[in-house]
Amino acid sequence: MEPRQKLINSAEVCVDEALCGLVRANGGLSRMWGGHRVLLRSDLNLLRGKVALLSGGGSGTNEPAHGGFIGEGMLSAAVAGGVLLLLLLPSILAAILCLHKAGAQGVLLIVKNYTGDRLNFGLAAEQARNHGVDVDMGIVAYDCGLNQPSKAGRRGLCGTIFIHKVAGALAEEGCSLIQMFPSVCVCVCVTGTLGVSLSPCSVPGCLPSFDLPPGDMEIGLGIHGEPGIKRSKMASADEVVKTMIDHMTNNDSQSHLPLKSGNSVVVCVNNLGALSCLEMAVVTRATIICLESRGVVVARVMSGSFMTSLEMVGVSLTVMTVDQETLRLFDAKTSAPAWPNLSSVCVSGRSFITEAPEMSPHPQDHTHKEGPLSPVMRKALVKVCTTLLEKQEELNALDRASGDGDCGNTHAQAAKAIQEWLQDHVVPGCPGRLLSVLAGLVQEKMGGSSGALYSLFLTAAAGHVTEGQSNGAAWATAMHAGTQAMKKYGGADVGDRTMLDALCPAVDELMKLKTAPPGGQLAVLQNAVKKASLGAESTLDLTAMAGRASYIAAERVSLPDPGAVAVATIMRTVMETLEEEKKK
Amino acid sequence: MEPRQKLINSAEVCVDEALCGLVRANGGLSRMWGGHRVLLRSDLNLLRGKVALLSGGGSGTNEPAHGGFIGEGMLSAAVAGGVLLLLLLPSILAAILCLHKAGAQGVLLIVKNYTGDRLNFGLAAEQARNHGVDVDMGIVAYDCGLNQPSKAGRRGLCGTIFIHKVAGALAEEGCSLIQMFPSVCVCVCVTGTLGVSLSPCSVPGCLPSFDLPPGDMEIGLGIHGEPGIKRSKMASADEVVKTMIDHMTNNDSQSHLPLKSGNSVVVCVNNLGALSCLEMAVVTRATIICLESRGVVVARVMSGSFMTSLEMVGVSLTVMTVDQETLRLFDAKTSAPAWPNLSSVCVSGRSFITEAPEMSPHPQDHTHKEGPLSPVMRKALVKVCTTLLEKQEELNALDRASGDGDCGNTHAQAAKAIQEWLQDHVVPGCPGRLLSVLAGLVQEKMGGSSGALYSLFLTAAAGHVTEGQSNGAAWATAMHAGTQAMKKYGGADVGDRTMLDALCPAVDELMKLKTAPPGGQLAVLQNAVKKASLGAESTLDLTAMAGRASYIAAERVSLPDPGAVAVATIMRTVMETLEEEKKK
Repeated sequence: MEPRQKLINSAEVCVDEALCGLVRANGGLSRMWGGHRVLLRSDLNLLRGKVALLSGGGSGTNEPAHGGFIGEGMLSAAVAGGVLLLLLLPSILAAILCLHKAGAQGVLLIVKNYTGDRLNFGLAAEQARNHGVDVDMGIVAYDCGLNQPSKAGRRGLCGTIFIHKVAGALAEEGCSLIQMFPSVCVCVCVTGTLGVSLSPCSVPGCLPSFDLPPGDMEIGLGIHGEPGIKRSKMASADEVVKTMIDHMTNNDSQSHLPLKSGNSVVVCVNNLGALSCLEMAVVTRATIICLESRGVVVARVMSGSFMTSLEMVGVSLTVMTVDQETLRLFDAKTSAPAWPNLSSVCVSGRSFITEAPEMSPHPQDHTHKEGPLSPVMRKALVKVCTTLLEKQEELNALDRASGDGDCGNTHAQAAKAIQEWLQDHVVPGCPGRLLSVLAGLVQEKMGGSSGALYSLFLTAAAGHVTEGQSNGAAWATAMHAGTQAMKKYGGADVGDRTMLDALCPAVDELMKLKTAPPGGQLAVLQNAVKKASLGAESTLDLTAMAGRASYIAAERVSLPDPGAVAVATIMRTVMETLEEEKKK
Repeated sequence: MEPRQKLINSAEVCVDEALCGLVRANGGLSRMWGGHRVLLRSDLNLLRGKVALLSGGGSGTNEPAHGGFIGEGMLSAAVAGGVLLLLLLPSILAAILCLHKAGAQGVLLIVKNYTGDRLNFGLAAEQARNHGVDVDMGIVAYDCGLNQPSKAGRRGLCGTIFIHKVAGALAEEGCSLIQMFPSVCVCVCVTGTLGVSLSPCSVPGCLPSFDLPPGDMEIGLGIHGEPGIKRSKMASADEVVKTMIDHMTNNDSQSHLPLKSGNSVVVCVNNLGALSCLEMAVVTRATIICLESRGVVVARVMSGSFMTSLEMVGVSLTVMTVDQETLRLFDAKTSAPAWPNLSSVCVSGRSFITEAPEMSPHPQDHTHKEGPLSPVMRKALVKVCTTLLEKQEELNALDRASGDGDCGNTHAQAAKAIQEWLQDHVVPGCPGRLLSVLAGLVQEKMGGSSGALYSLFLTAAAGHVTEGQSNGAAWATAMHAGTQAMKKYGGADVGDRTMLDALCPAVDELMKLKTAPPGGQLAVLQNAVKKASLGAESTLDLTAMAGRASYIAAERVSLPDPGAVAVATIMRTVMETLEEEKKK
């Protein structure tokens, strides 16, 4: 399979440019001049009298390791090779000498167990000793991949950054090189890592590192893309995590991590490159639950990209057993840019549930008291519902010209929901109450944007009409408030070819109710309904600016907006009810 | 194209499991019980008297947003929908009421400008007001994609987290809702975001969101995988970044970000999902350089995964212009788990170069003084080089059986390098000096693991033989020290089928030089050479345990190890030189 094109400038300069990007973006980092691929703390002066920590590895493949872990409380410097290449000896020596010159009391080299790294760091260490530097080398080897590791030993993988962290915290506290060395060795012994990959990765300019058919996964691979120990069909996240932890803790394997019930651990769920954050979080959950099911106390979990393999789709799990002292060092402050913002609360055993607030039951479930207005409001509602159901196909047809053709259906759904509700509920005498009930019904049963917009209108209107205040002026205020809410949250306005084109001119007219004499109110309403109809018709000439219709080319729309037509219809129906009432 | 299989348990439960993973891993988070998809601060009591911040969005697609930005100094809670689904109104209302109940003085809703989000948050806000909650809604709309945005307006993308940060810092300082609202609006106005994608993404259980042929890229896409504004052939990272920033700041576009020379900005380089860390760092560098080339002062850069689109291969750039006050709020402390460990040093203008330490020139370039031992050492060296060149093909043949067949070539390279050096240099009278020279030569010219191992041996040995101390005992100590270093850093031992199988028994014999009388030294050396030859021959029966040969099946190896044979040959040649000297 051809690897995807990379977003770089060229394979030749990508490592140097990536190092540059890391250094430029992070104020705590600097780069050594003079042909060396060495990143250092920019505050080297703070090393005086302390042990300096140096690590490194093939660069371009394992970012943000190791440069991202440079900072107070972690590494003092990191040496980077080319993509997957061995480290460069002169750069290692230059880094050691630079740290020595800055006043460090000894330098600890933290080296992943790859032959090339061991030899290059070892040679640099021997040469640095000839320069009078007190230097020691900790070899990090704890991968749980091979049941019977060869003489070359277990590999160093993502858990290396746990070693950086613990050693870094010790160094910051002024621990000497001689005191620090055993602590580092102990941490390596109680750490285990295993990776799983769903894809290979490819070095810029090269073919993928290995071949992995879609639907297969490979367990136990190395960070440089070395093939793993076992290939199998893809399984569920829970099963994959269980397989990994089983393998990591299998007593029959010479490279297992001894892990007993009651042990406390810190865990790193490490994205090998291109696993989605969604998958990472699912794997994180599975890992915590799997460890807890074995009686292990999960003290901390970090989940993210810490030591990657380019764009490999996969994840590695690192588990380190910790005592109180190691956990204290793990929690210590660091300024390393790739170290996450971790909480120091124990993961296992804490309460992570917040009770939901008590919410009043749906307003439509209340038993309401009828009042003088109840009969006419019921009549209007019944008539509106009947009309909307009659108009269902007409509205759908209008909507097919500009939208997805379901405007009639959604209004019919609302109508049916209201009809059902009317069957076994009294209509409350307080109009505001009724509007709240209707708001709840359309929000739940109508669905979509229309449901939300009607519900917004009704919710915002509800507060303005009460049993004691339900005259024309109050209704006008309520309709106005509802329209404003619809505008504010819907983001549309008159002229955008929406239901507002019917509603707004009608509500402007309705505002005259505030000053109209009691005998003139029906006339105002009749005018408002006329305005609504005219407004709805006017949308025929409008280009859709909001709502779904805005994504349709303007020339295709030669009919009025169905939402505006529906609003005009509802208003007309309410008016007709009131006219009939008046005739009685 | 079939999307790759996801590492989840099922499409139905993946969002809830991912939220669970996020909450379990982070001590500062908790989850609302009772069917709601709401994450909250676990320390809600700290909200008393402060403004609470609530955001949200379709979940499963934008992780770590928004849950990862919950914490002191950022969000108080976040509501999550299903994968790409609209938010659930009851959950939003429950979240608002929960924050209100915790004693928050008002709730600010930070809502990305998507119609569904606006309506749902708006409706919840209106309902919460009916419950007596002081609530306001900030709509975040600043994408720079469309030149002429529709009425629906610009979209909210990754820059939303800048708003979370600034508003969160204000809330933590006790700023009221009324005071905070204008600051938030100003931040939105001075923020711009644009994304580029090299691949589509796919929601679990669905086909990819859009089709993008390999080698193409799409600029200006939405975080929900909505197609972008412009599709073109893939270009270099520098060109892509320039195109993006050109578009974002193009005055002809209604949705451009006004950006002038002299402006200070904070920048977010956001991985949309599956871009490698290497590429991210290259893009980060390009972004900083591109902005600086326009006279813009880059104050801070964050680079990583902050608001993703599942496994989309792409990156978005967000630029927010800042004044001193906004920068202070940006730098304020937060416990939100997805906020990076940022330095508060200005990116532009700082020195990011450390001088390399002065290293002494290569020892082989020194002019050395000859001494009494110089002639015999020169003779031995000449003879060793000649012999190794004669044996080149023999060693290659041995190596073809177990390795890559170049053992003779690498030794020949070393021999030629030494021959060249001998032509225009005197052999120093101090044997330690000579060993250092040889260490440098083989390290540089021999290459590979053999070069490093020989160099280690010689470097570690060099300190033990000086002009004043070069008797048999000193040479024995030197050879022993060299062998120990080779073992320590190479990780191999006797019996692993390496050059140590010849070297170690020989050095054990050489240690008798410490007690042998002057007349018996040659006999010790002769015995040591015999032991070396026997050791080399013994490797014929050994299974390779270290070095490249360890990867070859044991049955294929039926010849002695070429490295051990080479060591035995070198020792024999040195001995022959000394025998000839004695005869004189």
